Amino acid sequence: MPGGYDTDTVTRLETNLDDSSPEILGATMDRLLDAGALDVWFTPIHMKKNRPGTMLSVLGETAKVETLAEIIFRETSAFGLRTEQVVRLKLERRFEQVATEFGEVTVKLGLKGGSVVQAAPEFESCRAVSEKSGQPLRAIYEAATRAFQNRPA
Amino acid sequence: MPGGYDTDTVTRLETNLDDSSPEILGATMDRLLDAGALDVWFTPIHMKKNRPGTMLSVLGETAKVETLAEIIFRETSAFGLRTEQVVRLKLERRFEQVATEFGEVTVKLGLKGGSVVQAAPEFESCRAVSEKSGQPLRAIYEAATRAFQNRPA
Amino acid sequence: MPGGYDTDTVTRLETNLDDSSPEILGATMDRLLDAGALDVWFTPIHMKKNRPGTMLSVLGETAKVETLAEIIFRETSAFGLRTEQVVRLKLERRFEQVATEFGEVTVKLGLKGGSVVQAAPEFESCRAVSEKSGQPLRAIYEAATRAFQNRPA
Amino acid sequence: MPGGYDTDTVTRLETNLDDSSPEILGATMDRLLDAGALDVWFTPIHMKKNRPGTMLSVLGETAKVETLAEIIFRETSAFGLRTEQVVRLKLERRFEQVATEFGEVTVKLGLKGGSVVQAAPEFESCRAVSEKSGQPLRAIYEAATRAFQNRPA
Amino acid sequence: MPGGYDTDTVTRLETNLDDSSPEILGATMDRLLDAGALDVWFTPIHMKKNRPGTMLSVLGETAKVETLAEIIFRETSAFGLRTEQVVRLKLERRFEQVATEFGEVTVKLGLKGGSVVQAAPEFESCRAVSEKSGQPLRAIYEAATRAFQNRPA
Amino acid sequence: MPGGYDTDTVTRLETNLDDSSPEILGATMDRLLDAGALDVWFTPIHMKKNRPGTMLSVLGETAKVETLAEIIFRETSAFGLRTEQVVRLKLERRFEQVATEFGEVTVKLGLKGGSVVQAAPEFESCRAVSEKSGQPLRAIYEAATRAFQNRPA
Repeated sequence: MPGGYDTDTVTRLETNLDDSSPEILGATMDRLLDAGALDVWFTPIHMKKNRPGTMLSVLGETAKVETLAEIIFRETSAFGLRTEQVVRLKLERRFEQVATEFGEVTVKLGLKGGSVVQAAPEFESCRAVSEKSGQPLRAIYEAATRAFQNRPA
Repeated sequence: MPGGYDTDTVTRLETNLDDSSPEILGATMDRLLDAGALDVWFTPIHMKKNRPGTMLSVLGETAKVETLAEIIFRETSAFGLRTEQVVRLKLERRFEQVATEFGEVTVKLGLKGGSVVQAAPEFESCRAVSEKSGQPLRAIYEAATRAFQNRPA
Repeated sequence: MPGGYDTDTVTRLETNLDDSSPEILGATMDRLLDAGALDVWFTPIHMKKNRPGTMLSVLGETAKVETLAEIIFRETSAFGLRTEQVVRLKLERRFEQVATEFGEVTVKLGLKGGSVVQAAPEFESCRAVSEKSGQPLRAIYEAATRAFQNRPA
Repeated sequence: MPGGYDTDTVTRLETNLDDSSPEILGATMDRLLDAGALDVWFTPIHMKKNRPGTMLSVLGETAKVETLAEIIFRETSAFGLRTEQVVRLKLERRFEQVATEFGEVTVKLGLKGGSVVQAAPEFESCRAVSEKSGQPLRAIYEAATRAFQNRPA
Repeated sequence: MPGGYDTDTVTRLETNLDDSSPEILGATMDRLLDAGALDVWFTPIHMKKNRPGTMLSVLGETAKVETLAEIIFRETSAFGLRTEQVVRLKLERRFEQVATEFGEVTVKLGLKGGSVVQAAPEFESCRAVSEKSGQPLRAIYEAATRAFQNRPA
Repeated sequence: MPGGYDTDTVTRLETNLDDSSPEILGATMDRLLDAGALDVWFTPIHMKKNRPGTMLSVLGETAKVETLAEIIFRETSAFGLRTEQVVRLKLERRFEQVATEFGEVTVKLGLKGGSVVQAAPEFESCRAVSEKSGQPLRAIYEAATRAFQNRPA
């Protein structure tokens, strides 16, 4: 595995759903995230008999597979699901505060071997500042990016 | 409107569905086609509250809108639907038989101002020949295309 | 226009976005709904130069077009948007309460010419009962559907 | 692997198609299912050079990989395909008949450790009853669900 | 129509393709853009008989409909296409050069009633600078955004 | 593994992107292909908080994972990515020239155990002939297919 990255092995759970209502799937996403899923996403798929189905994908720590599977069987119409091990390469994460003209914003940093490779304004913190200031969310992102780049060394 | 094409005005019906099961939607497509819809298709859409919804689109003669709308309301969970007039430009259609090494196949021709602009082996006829001959469907398409191009003038 | 349905004419606004971040688009959807959009959805589209873009569609009363357009220009990267008039066919809506073994649930009814054509448990009310009772959301939907069908005449 | 579920290891075959006609792909799906594929689905993908491609995914018993691969190479334009082992967690399946006001319907049950976790009206059986009775497919699903829930213990 | 925006009326051409190869569609997009289409995009759609089809959408000046239609009929397998008039609301466009630490970049401005509402680094100009400087494209965008915001009044 | 096919084991890298601009992703695809990726594609996915995200998938030789990962972290907003080993079944590839009425075209052949299983006109060669001859790209494909089938044994 390439050096310099944090790595871990996690499980991806997947199931193809052709008889679940989207309303219920939207709520299932929240329940899986609340239960500690690392990520949850839907992919539109074409299933047999002209069914516009949805693939539900859940990334979870292997120790949590049983919990996550139980939620899927409980909340959706799945009769089975597929599991696979995946190896993740990850940047080390760190958070920093930056001051913008609209208020303080959190910036999420990604580091590799100690150097900053990635820097992104953190969504919820931008949204809060956007709502308080009445400025567009984009303006907050741009201000935070600029403030981060101009920060004192 | 550009000259040389057949034109007509038809209606497109559309509805965004976030609480219908794909199993039922697959069957609804068949019922709409059986009732005379000109075309029916699904588009995957992202709806509010994280719902992986489906847009149902139906193209129909304006005189059939009431029939088609009734099927949509009856078979799906729609509470409303949108209608729009669209103007179609169409090639004139004609069908021809061609002889291939695997059997006779129908070719669908599209003409503009009397000249052939489009020629496509007709699916159901290719499928029948493919099933009878045991040849891949692609091979039948290619044979029919070749036979059409080499037909005596 | 077919008889028996409520109809109105509304405007659909659409724009193809190839340089907006999905994080920001997710929040834009909420702002458009808060501002009174009738519906908001995203469609995945393939744009030129290999861009996996997003079409933003907004349905709004024609009197609100200016407000909705302003939010789109303010929150997204759009330089332009398309507008079209669409005629809606709608069922008349009514809400009823039904008692289930897990609690009271709202059912949304769709009527045409005074008869019930559509009946669907209302999402937020099911979610509240699901969270209070600890039952799967699907179970609440099924209980509400059953209670509605068995209601005294 | 979590206890209480049936598990098995199967193979997923996948290939990205950028020069196959959708007409032929639709028929390929049927051929793969006829040959014993456990599931077949299409995912819309964006491929290089602005190609709106399709990923074909096939789930099959590992002993059937050779047969399924041969169909894919024969029927589509694939020059290669990817295979991966996946571990499935499955509910035990059982079928039951329930009587509804419209006719008898099969319900598919999913069990874990002997208890029913999942119950879904079986599509083909509902479709048959819907066609015979002239009732919407949804009405048959709802009647079957209700009949199953009210069945004598 | 809302005041303060440039408006015009253009035509959207659309056709559902179920027997065109994605390879050819990718090239068709280029030909339509070369012929002056205002925008071209693909939407993945589910068509009858399990076909993972593609909707081709083209936006063009109404005077160019005939030219664009001819390309579609010539390059794809379409036998017909739909046309609709759409009204566009547009920001007035202007271009400005900004100096970044990596080189000069064009910024595209969108104005409404004389004020700048939108400002976006222009893609091709960023790509050129990215290639010459060896910096990531994102870095050029961020530098150009920053340079534009800090430009002398 | 099934006999008669070439096989190898390669790595698939995947990451879900919810804060990258499509403009930048389009260019990232080119950079990954230039760096030797075997294939690159985007899948539209629904991510949490209503984000119309994109999954970036890259297939690469395992020895190139570090290079490809570095490009992904450098050009996109990814903080992590998933890697999986996949086993490919491949036809042996060979290229042949065929003469058509419009010019010479390359045909890509796929062989299994020495027999031709797949034959496809090569895109770039067809495009060149199409541009030089002014004939539709489809016509070149059809001519090349026909010329290949009629070639002297």
